[in-house]
Amino acid sequence: MEPQIPKGFRDFLPERMRLRKRLIAKMTEIFERFGFEPLDTPCLEYAETLLGKYGEEGDRLIYKFQDRGERMVALRYDLTIPLSRVVAMHPEIIKPFKRYHIAPVWRADKPQKGRFREFYQCDIDIIGSTSVYADGELLVITYTVLKDLGFKNFIIRINNRKILNAFAVNHGIGEQRFPDFLRSLDKLDKTGLEGVFSELTEKGILNDRLRASLASLTSEGASSDHEECLLLLDSLVQGHEQGREGVAELRIIYETLKGHDVDPACYRFDFTLARGLDYYTGPIFETVVTEPKIGSITGGGRYDNLIGLFSKDTFPATGTSFGLERLVTVMEELGAAETKTSLTKVLITQFDRLLMPRNLQLARLLRDSGINTEVYFSPDKLKKQLTYASHKAIPFVAILGPDEDRDGKITIKNMTAGTQETILQSDLPSWIHTQLRQP
Amino acid sequence: MEPQIPKGFRDFLPERMRLRKRLIAKMTEIFERFGFEPLDTPCLEYAETLLGKYGEEGDRLIYKFQDRGERMVALRYDLTIPLSRVVAMHPEIIKPFKRYHIAPVWRADKPQKGRFREFYQCDIDIIGSTSVYADGELLVITYTVLKDLGFKNFIIRINNRKILNAFAVNHGIGEQRFPDFLRSLDKLDKTGLEGVFSELTEKGILNDRLRASLASLTSEGASSDHEECLLLLDSLVQGHEQGREGVAELRIIYETLKGHDVDPACYRFDFTLARGLDYYTGPIFETVVTEPKIGSITGGGRYDNLIGLFSKDTFPATGTSFGLERLVTVMEELGAAETKTSLTKVLITQFDRLLMPRNLQLARLLRDSGINTEVYFSPDKLKKQLTYASHKAIPFVAILGPDEDRDGKITIKNMTAGTQETILQSDLPSWIHTQLRQP
Repeated sequence: MEPQIPKGFRDFLPERMRLRKRLIAKMTEIFERFGFEPLDTPCLEYAETLLGKYGEEGDRLIYKFQDRGERMVALRYDLTIPLSRVVAMHPEIIKPFKRYHIAPVWRADKPQKGRFREFYQCDIDIIGSTSVYADGELLVITYTVLKDLGFKNFIIRINNRKILNAFAVNHGIGEQRFPDFLRSLDKLDKTGLEGVFSELTEKGILNDRLRASLASLTSEGASSDHEECLLLLDSLVQGHEQGREGVAELRIIYETLKGHDVDPACYRFDFTLARGLDYYTGPIFETVVTEPKIGSITGGGRYDNLIGLFSKDTFPATGTSFGLERLVTVMEELGAAETKTSLTKVLITQFDRLLMPRNLQLARLLRDSGINTEVYFSPDKLKKQLTYASHKAIPFVAILGPDEDRDGKITIKNMTAGTQETILQSDLPSWIHTQLRQP
Repeated sequence: MEPQIPKGFRDFLPERMRLRKRLIAKMTEIFERFGFEPLDTPCLEYAETLLGKYGEEGDRLIYKFQDRGERMVALRYDLTIPLSRVVAMHPEIIKPFKRYHIAPVWRADKPQKGRFREFYQCDIDIIGSTSVYADGELLVITYTVLKDLGFKNFIIRINNRKILNAFAVNHGIGEQRFPDFLRSLDKLDKTGLEGVFSELTEKGILNDRLRASLASLTSEGASSDHEECLLLLDSLVQGHEQGREGVAELRIIYETLKGHDVDPACYRFDFTLARGLDYYTGPIFETVVTEPKIGSITGGGRYDNLIGLFSKDTFPATGTSFGLERLVTVMEELGAAETKTSLTKVLITQFDRLLMPRNLQLARLLRDSGINTEVYFSPDKLKKQLTYASHKAIPFVAILGPDEDRDGKITIKNMTAGTQETILQSDLPSWIHTQLRQP
C-alpha cells in the first residue's frame, strides 16, 4: 500500500517541530504573563453551531459530515465561535474572562502554496469587558510577542468600525450597503484603489464625494504621527456621535500602548483597515510584516454581539488571533537556529552488551542533572554510532570502553569542534553543563 | 440558538486545563531527556490508511467521511498508524527514530461515564532498532513519568508475544487460533479465569492441559521475585526456540530497569498479559494503577511488521502510549493543587482612568520581571474588583490611589492571609517575588 498524506495537510518532522514548539511556548508564556488562562474545546462541533457565522464563503469551507447517523457535525473553523459557545453554556465563568487557545482549525480550501486545510491559530480573547483598555492590552501583547520573537519590520494597523460607519453615513452609504462597502475596502491591499473603485461602482455604491475622500485618504497614506492621525479621524466623523466615540476609543488604545512603552513606529491608526468579518462592532486591528513581505500575521477586533447569538444574555468581547504558519515563515526567514541542533545533548555509545549496565547508569546520571541523553541501543561499529550522532546534530558523544571503565573514566567527543577529552565518569554531568553554557 | 457541545466531547475550562498542561509539560520534559523528539501529523488521514489496522471493532469506530467529494478521509484513531505512514513516506529519517507525539484521537464509541469520543494519547515510539534495550527504555520512561507525577501504587506488567506463542504451541493451539487465544486471555482482568475458560470453550480452543496450565499460572499470581518469574517463563517455553528468545529479551529489559534503578516493586513479568492488538511481535507491556482502581494507564509493545504494510522495506519498531485522561483522573484523586490557584499572581486595581497610565507602567514592571499580572479594566467599586481577584484565586491585589501615587507608593493586599502593606512602587516586583517564594 502506497502511503499518502491527504492533500493540503502536513506532517511536521522534529526539525520543523522545534521551531513551532518554541513559538507556542513563547506565546503561552506571554499570554499568561498578561493574565490569560488556557481553554480547550473539541475539534468537532455540531454543524449548526458553526454554519451561518462566517459568511457564504465560510459555510462552503467548513468540513461537515454526519456523526454516525445522528447529527451533522463539523470540524472547527476558527477558535472564536467555539469560545462563544463555551461562554454561553457556562454562565459561571467569571468575567472578564481572559483566555488563550492555541490549536488547529480546518478549512476545505483549495490547497495551494502557503495555504493549508489544517493550520494553527493562536487566539487571545477577553469576554465581559466593554473597556477599550482590554482592546489595547491585546495590542500590547501582539507587540510583546513579535518583539520577543525578534521580529523587526512589522506594523500593527488599528481602526474602529464605528469610524468606518460614521464615514459611510457621512458619504451617503446606508446601513444595508455598509457590509458591502467594508468588503470592498478590505481588498485595498490586494487590488489597489482602482480595484476598490471598480468594485464599489459595480455594487452601485460609489459616488463622487466618496471617490474623492477615499482617493485623498489613501494617497496620503496613514501618517506616522499618531496625534495627527487621530485628528484626521476626528474630521472624518464630524457630527456623528458613534464616530466620535470610535475615535475616543482609539485614544484609549493609544494611551495603553504608550503606558507599555510600545515603539511608536510599530503601530498606526489606519482608516483603510476594514477586516473581512461582519461581526466586528468596535476597534479592529491587524499586523502586517513588511519584511519578508508576507501579509498579515495577526488580526482581530471587538465583537460585542456575537456571543448573543448563543445566549439570551449579551457579552461584550474582543480578541485577536496569531497565525502560527506565517509566524513560522517569518522566523525561518530570520534564520531561527532551532532547525539545526538536536534537543539531545549527549549520545552514549555502546562498546558491547557487557558495558550496557554502566552506560545506563551514566545516562541516568546525566538525565537526573537535566541533560537530554541518548544511549545507543546496539553494539555497532563506533564509526556508525558517531555518524548517527553527527546526522542527528547531537553535540557530544560519550565513549565508554572497558579500559576507561576500569579507571572510572570516560572519553567525550565534541562533535562540533572535533576535539576529545577523557574525564572522570563522576564529572560527566558538570563537564557537559559547563560546555553547554559556552557560546 | 441553544448552545450545545457534541455528545462524548468536552470543553476544558482553565481550572481543568492547568493540570492537563502540567502533565503534558512533565511528559514532554522527560521524553526529551531520553532523547525523544516531537512529531506532529494531521488530524485527518485518508480512510484507507486507517482501515483494516485496528480489527473489525476499530474499523467500526473510525470517524470517516467524504472529503469534499474527493476521497474518503478519517479522523486519526491513534498515533501509531500515522507514525507508520510518516516513516514509510520519509526514508530520509535517521534511524533509530525516537519520537513523541501528544495529541487528540477520535473514536465514535458510545459515550458513557469515563469514555469519550475525543481524548489525548501521549505516545513514545522507537523506529529502526531491533534491540530490546529500546523496549526497556520505554519502560524506564514509563516509570520515571509516573514517579515524577507522584504516583505511588502502580505496576508495569511485562510479557512477550513470543512466550505466549511458545506456550500456545506447547498446548496444541495452532497459528490460526493464536489471535483468538490472545483475545480471550486479554479478558482475564475483566471476566476472571472462568470467563476465559468459557470463551475458549466456545471457540473450541480449550483442552485439559491448557485448562490445567492456565489455572496453575493464574492461581499463583505473578511472583514478585523477578528471577523466579523469569525461571517460570523459561519452563513454559521449553523446547521452543522463539519462546526462549522471548525470555532472553525479557532478561535484557530486566537489565535495563535495574540499570536505571527502577523500584522492583513497580514492575512484574506477567505471563497473563496478552494485549488486544494483533500487530505486536515481541515484548508487550501495560501499567495498571491499583489505587485509585482505574485500570491500565499505559500500554504498548513491539510491532516489527506494522510499518511494512506501508513500505517495501520493513522497520522494527516498539512504542508505548500514556492515556492522558486516566492520568488526570489519578492526579485528581491524589489531590493535585493545580486546580485551586490562578496562574495570575497580581491584580492591579483601577481607581480611575487618570491613574491608568501608572497602572499600566506598574503592570509592565511586574510582567518584565516574570510575574503574571492583570490590570483591572474598569473603574468599578474596589469591593467588586477584590471579589473578582478572590473568585479567580489571584493571590495578590495591588491597590493604587492618588495619595499613594503622589508618594510613589502602592498598597498590596495578600488575599490568602487577609493582610495588607504599603510599599514603594519600585520595590513591587522584588516584594512579590519574595512573597511567592514563601511556602
